[in-house]
Amino acid sequence: MDVDAGDRVKERIGPAVRATFGPRVLTDVGPLGAFGGMYAVGDLGLRDPVLVGSADGVGTKLKIAFLLDRHDSIGADLVNHCVDDVLTTGARPLFFMDYFATGALRPEVVVQVVEGIAATCREVGCALLGGETAQMPGFYGDGEYDLAGFLVGVVDRDAILGPHRVRGGDVAIGLAASGLHTNGYSLVRRILGLDGDPGEARRRLEQWVPELESTLGDELLRVHRSYLAALGPRLGRVHALAHVTGGGLLGNLPRALPPDLAVELDRGSWVEPPIFSLIARLGRLDDAEMDRTFNRGLGMVAFVAPADAEQLVAELGEAWIVGRVVPRAEEPAVRFR
Amino acid sequence: MDVDAGDRVKERIGPAVRATFGPRVLTDVGPLGAFGGMYAVGDLGLRDPVLVGSADGVGTKLKIAFLLDRHDSIGADLVNHCVDDVLTTGARPLFFMDYFATGALRPEVVVQVVEGIAATCREVGCALLGGETAQMPGFYGDGEYDLAGFLVGVVDRDAILGPHRVRGGDVAIGLAASGLHTNGYSLVRRILGLDGDPGEARRRLEQWVPELESTLGDELLRVHRSYLAALGPRLGRVHALAHVTGGGLLGNLPRALPPDLAVELDRGSWVEPPIFSLIARLGRLDDAEMDRTFNRGLGMVAFVAPADAEQLVAELGEAWIVGRVVPRAEEPAVRFR
Repeated sequence: MDVDAGDRVKERIGPAVRATFGPRVLTDVGPLGAFGGMYAVGDLGLRDPVLVGSADGVGTKLKIAFLLDRHDSIGADLVNHCVDDVLTTGARPLFFMDYFATGALRPEVVVQVVEGIAATCREVGCALLGGETAQMPGFYGDGEYDLAGFLVGVVDRDAILGPHRVRGGDVAIGLAASGLHTNGYSLVRRILGLDGDPGEARRRLEQWVPELESTLGDELLRVHRSYLAALGPRLGRVHALAHVTGGGLLGNLPRALPPDLAVELDRGSWVEPPIFSLIARLGRLDDAEMDRTFNRGLGMVAFVAPADAEQLVAELGEAWIVGRVVPRAEEPAVRFR
Repeated sequence: MDVDAGDRVKERIGPAVRATFGPRVLTDVGPLGAFGGMYAVGDLGLRDPVLVGSADGVGTKLKIAFLLDRHDSIGADLVNHCVDDVLTTGARPLFFMDYFATGALRPEVVVQVVEGIAATCREVGCALLGGETAQMPGFYGDGEYDLAGFLVGVVDRDAILGPHRVRGGDVAIGLAASGLHTNGYSLVRRILGLDGDPGEARRRLEQWVPELESTLGDELLRVHRSYLAALGPRLGRVHALAHVTGGGLLGNLPRALPPDLAVELDRGSWVEPPIFSLIARLGRLDDAEMDRTFNRGLGMVAFVAPADAEQLVAELGEAWIVGRVVPRAEEPAVRFR
């Protein structure tokens, strides 16, 4: 157990972490080494504040980072995944904490990861309030690690979004994903032959793929998009949001709908990035399999009033009207036409 | 990726999780499957509420749970570790979230773990607001998993404990640990020969050790003690608290002290449980090594006003006056006499 390595890491990440602190982070009552990070929530300017918490990981997307020895973008994936989760309730982020676990600490790796987390926290306006760096001999492969994040956001009780606001006739607006985001990577690695010999996997990742206009590695490491900038200023015009993560379109859209309503999607109403057709072709996956695993280019789906839909799409950019909310009896909550 | 196993787990843990919900958990706006857990903090009855967050794992104590295939106590370790961390600021717990990561999901294992987490959350009066169960093929050994927890507590700004309250002449009260708690396990496993052949390790864990009046396995799985029940009603009489975790007495006591003060401990003023002398003897560890790795029987140290110390010790039970706060120039912040 290398306690000194842990201390060196703390020293190196200090400035990046402190740069995320606003006036609500109480540093006057304890240094960075305090047992708990403190965040003042008096006078948030809300009538009836509700905290919203989300815990997430980045899954086996990490294996791509390991193969390419690139650890500077995975922190953004982690933070944005959490930000998008709490955003679905209408909440904006307050503070974030991370858990980084590895066998033997490689300071330069954890510094890259945490600096990525800190930079993204700063972008989305939340404090990196604390974290745990665990050295666990015998748990992780050489040079590997796992990463989890916890975000706390806040929303006024009257402003909470969700299924209770959705009405028949509402319009589903799909917002463009940057790529696979953080889901389906175990399947993708198998389909693309990235789960065997590391040398061969690395060679494939570094190859330029004309269809993707990118190397495979760059495509697979594209950062999970945060929808806070696009949706944050417009949450008052949104009824519910579905963050399309594990379980794909079929698994996540129903989470934003009441039991008596379904969504009817128009396939072809949005632009599916080429990585999805590449995976479908090489893996011989049909639409049903693709729909229940991937976001297919729609990382977030907003349910909104029909009268406002066109205007919202125009403002959101890279967004499409992708479907409509319809009555539901026994049928599935997501249909295509 | 077994999505169905994940759903079955969610169903089975539902009742235990719901049992932790109080009126502040908003379940009316979303089912358990919501993207974020919601916790209302309006009217907490505090003048200037400060949230306190802590992220923790249980380290390689998990390896003992794996060897014995006993997963019902490790959740309590995780929650109590976090509870004790936020308690050091004077905060009481509001809500908890967990991250459970494994290669292939064994539903009966994750159910045991999460039920342990939920039961402990209930004990300490906090809601289990959410969590992430990650299936990560190729990350963890067969039947192994990692576990992280995140706790949010609250304290009134005027009631925050810490180094700023400690004065020269204050008395250090040590509160009894239940055992190793969650630290030093990698070293202990090496010293006790538990990191080699699993069959042999299991045999050793199941052996009765007269010196411990227990099997080795029971001793090593003893649950990290929560000090909330003992200290919670008495926080107004405490200046600062040190939670003795990774880094042992030497690493953690200074975190509760201002830079110009040290603590002088009387070795022998408290009862060190026999597991510590066993480890010291078999590992040939001297006091310095023991002091910077283990809690040595003091899981929490409270710094209090001298006039109140005797009375507090009497009320706390299993607690001792273990030292005194003295001026400090260049010497270490923890000394023994």
